[in-house]
Amino acid sequence: MELSLAELAGRTGTEVRGNGAKRVSAIAAIETATGQEISFVRDRQYARFLDNCEAGALILPPELAQRYPGDCLISPNPYLTYAKVAALLNPPLRPDSGIHPSAVVAPDVVLGQAVSIGPQVSIGPGCRIGDRVVLEAGCTLERDCRVDADSWLHARVALGCGTRIGRHVIIHSGAVLGADGFGFVPETSGWYKIPQIGIVRVDDDVEIGANTTIDRAALGETRIGRGVKLDNLIHIAHNVQLGEHTVIAACTGIAGSAKIGAWCQISGMVSIAGHLSIADRVTITATSFVINSITEPGVYSSGTTVDEHSLWRRNAVRFRQLDQLTRRVQALEKQLGEGPDQQGT
Amino acid sequence: MELSLAELAGRTGTEVRGNGAKRVSAIAAIETATGQEISFVRDRQYARFLDNCEAGALILPPELAQRYPGDCLISPNPYLTYAKVAALLNPPLRPDSGIHPSAVVAPDVVLGQAVSIGPQVSIGPGCRIGDRVVLEAGCTLERDCRVDADSWLHARVALGCGTRIGRHVIIHSGAVLGADGFGFVPETSGWYKIPQIGIVRVDDDVEIGANTTIDRAALGETRIGRGVKLDNLIHIAHNVQLGEHTVIAACTGIAGSAKIGAWCQISGMVSIAGHLSIADRVTITATSFVINSITEPGVYSSGTTVDEHSLWRRNAVRFRQLDQLTRRVQALEKQLGEGPDQQGT
Amino acid sequence: MELSLAELAGRTGTEVRGNGAKRVSAIAAIETATGQEISFVRDRQYARFLDNCEAGALILPPELAQRYPGDCLISPNPYLTYAKVAALLNPPLRPDSGIHPSAVVAPDVVLGQAVSIGPQVSIGPGCRIGDRVVLEAGCTLERDCRVDADSWLHARVALGCGTRIGRHVIIHSGAVLGADGFGFVPETSGWYKIPQIGIVRVDDDVEIGANTTIDRAALGETRIGRGVKLDNLIHIAHNVQLGEHTVIAACTGIAGSAKIGAWCQISGMVSIAGHLSIADRVTITATSFVINSITEPGVYSSGTTVDEHSLWRRNAVRFRQLDQLTRRVQALEKQLGEGPDQQGT
Repeated sequence: MELSLAELAGRTGTEVRGNGAKRVSAIAAIETATGQEISFVRDRQYARFLDNCEAGALILPPELAQRYPGDCLISPNPYLTYAKVAALLNPPLRPDSGIHPSAVVAPDVVLGQAVSIGPQVSIGPGCRIGDRVVLEAGCTLERDCRVDADSWLHARVALGCGTRIGRHVIIHSGAVLGADGFGFVPETSGWYKIPQIGIVRVDDDVEIGANTTIDRAALGETRIGRGVKLDNLIHIAHNVQLGEHTVIAACTGIAGSAKIGAWCQISGMVSIAGHLSIADRVTITATSFVINSITEPGVYSSGTTVDEHSLWRRNAVRFRQLDQLTRRVQALEKQLGEGPDQQGT
Repeated sequence: MELSLAELAGRTGTEVRGNGAKRVSAIAAIETATGQEISFVRDRQYARFLDNCEAGALILPPELAQRYPGDCLISPNPYLTYAKVAALLNPPLRPDSGIHPSAVVAPDVVLGQAVSIGPQVSIGPGCRIGDRVVLEAGCTLERDCRVDADSWLHARVALGCGTRIGRHVIIHSGAVLGADGFGFVPETSGWYKIPQIGIVRVDDDVEIGANTTIDRAALGETRIGRGVKLDNLIHIAHNVQLGEHTVIAACTGIAGSAKIGAWCQISGMVSIAGHLSIADRVTITATSFVINSITEPGVYSSGTTVDEHSLWRRNAVRFRQLDQLTRRVQALEKQLGEGPDQQGT
Repeated sequence: MELSLAELAGRTGTEVRGNGAKRVSAIAAIETATGQEISFVRDRQYARFLDNCEAGALILPPELAQRYPGDCLISPNPYLTYAKVAALLNPPLRPDSGIHPSAVVAPDVVLGQAVSIGPQVSIGPGCRIGDRVVLEAGCTLERDCRVDADSWLHARVALGCGTRIGRHVIIHSGAVLGADGFGFVPETSGWYKIPQIGIVRVDDDVEIGANTTIDRAALGETRIGRGVKLDNLIHIAHNVQLGEHTVIAACTGIAGSAKIGAWCQISGMVSIAGHLSIADRVTITATSFVINSITEPGVYSSGTTVDEHSLWRRNAVRFRQLDQLTRRVQALEKQLGEGPDQQGT
């Protein structure tokens, strides 16, 4: 794929400065970009790279464009423009349409136009596959699943019974949607399994990362809202609700029936307890543990960060005496007639 | 599936009040249940839903049944009765028996009665598959595995060489049992791999969640005791022993040779170090880090929970000075002739 | 496989004491080893097992060999010798060479000598498979992947477009290499996907655990250095660089563009933030959270460890008041004319 700067400017709504006829064939990082490639500088932080830059062209914010003599696209949001240029120069290599002869498709499955069903795919009875859907090698769909138009499941995605996938959804390899939620009732003889008879519903424009798991509801639905983006190795338990456009980074786990708002940003290795609510536009930093509902937008954190080991060990021991330490301070304050109230703390 | 309240009462050991001939076809949450559906109220906490309830019948504890005029099943444990009613109304849709023509089964594999071997299943030499076992699409069994009667492996489960699965075991999609444990010895040139020549043994009535991994032993067995329930994305390292009826929630990791007792309840995102023992009936709360053995039953916790970010940052900085702070308090106590002993703290 | 002690001594560079002609057929733990088996004692910690030991032979360090009358191999590093003896007695059961008829291999794929392509493997256009490579059942390789000589992919490994795997690499079941990195740019209407057009490159002698995910780079490469060992359920984000011989335990997550040095030892459930650097020979203990670069070798830790729940709860509450507590201590010090400086703390 090769495009001129003028074409790229037109299709990204940016302004070209210099030789609009110059053609570029790829996008690359500014440290490595060559004359046939276009690169970008996101902000002043990377401005130092401008001097030795050998890229054929750059995507720059206005303030940096002034300092750069070469051909460039001027954008108020160079990072977004980079993403759009990368998409224009790298159209996805869609597998050919058709059903591979090694695929196993139940007789009653309804297939849309121009679907691409790869090798060793298995589609159970009652499934409906929309137009232009791609199911790569080894995907397994149990009975009564539905995948709407233009969605793309990478190799070895597994959908449990009744899973509903919207339009323009991307699911990466190894993800499992619709496995049984984790529900048991104790008996003297052991744990009695609660049948998980609900489903997983994924709305349009969602992306789900590799080896992430989303469990089917005990009753009703586990719901992934429109535009949600999930990274790899995330666990979404039964009956969780994720609001629109919420993004969640890798290794995070959300327990049963938690209700997460829209436009939340949840970082990696976060634990969210069950049966709570998180408001819209809440940001949670990495490794945090959320045990109660969060009702106000804002940034929330927990955890501690690394120190040299022997220092950490001393502090960690003191943590286990922290309540006692606080009471010792109270005793000192009492003895001195001091107190938080008197100090305005 | 449709059953009368009298039938449900008889098969769940509960008492029917009202019209025992009324038939219900499904179970639903009380907020959404309609006239053909039965629902349940677990305890007083949800009693408020009784007034506007449109369910055809309810499962209630005695004290709530008094306040409800409609048809109901009266149970000392409505949650357990709900699970049993859900099971009666939703018998699992077992795939047809037989071996799908696309499955690859080694010639010497011993197959029991009425097994169901799905599309693209691969079974290596020396495997034994018990009566009524279900292996869904894409399951892979390396050589010499054994899966006993009435166990059900969902799509794309992988069993490594020699894995032993008991009776009535359920394994969800993407789980990997019997991969090599993580063992290496340092040499100057790199890490020398310790051959992992043991196996994984899973006893009867175990359930294993999606994308969970259980590694084979270096020598001997990694052992999952009878009735254990494992959620998704759990890591069980080589030579771990899990006692009977222990339940573990998602994203928890247990390091090598840890020995966990029976009837433990381990929550999500818990880390358990290797080569330690945990007693029976120990409960560990979410995100805890267990670094030493636990010898007494009880509830154990660690970690910190979220605060507003700027408050958290100040506290996290102070944590790194906690030992120093404690010594400062000691100095003050000394100066004042005070001390923990004198305060009885 | 059966070997004499003299043969084992010769092939492991150790000294045999006693009957060098004695043949052993297996290696076992010292508590269970029988007369046909060889076992080992790593150090004095396990010396108590020597007395009742029924093993046919032992691998011992010199100081313990003095206290043991039986046949033994004397080694300065019994643990390494155990690993080598285990490898000699348990040569890997390599599947037969050839391409299983159910495998789907694109016409232009270049296959080396003596490859073993298992059932239901799918290999896309443009792939190159080196000599003696093993691809077990259900592996999926998207277009333009390369797997070099003597590498072994266990069942159901997925490689995304362009993934490069070196020589003598072992990848366990369910691992996903080359899925899209997690990159989006916010727009008012939602998150715009940043095309992930880089690749994953894995150097020689790497081992990757079950269900671990390694994402392809946004631009350029995600690089796993020579001799790196990764455990199960690890997340390696796009553009991460792992230095040679670094080992990482299970459930750890590393965010985008982090650069980890050589010979690091990173324990389980560790979180490492993105866009930072970690020096060579850094050890990070389990559950740590690394938020800034680490420039010096050493051992680093964070987190807190379990206490009895009610004690933990009191301390965790105090943690949320820790900054306030520190200021209260400062006030007391001020009132008493005391201060850290005067105490030399």
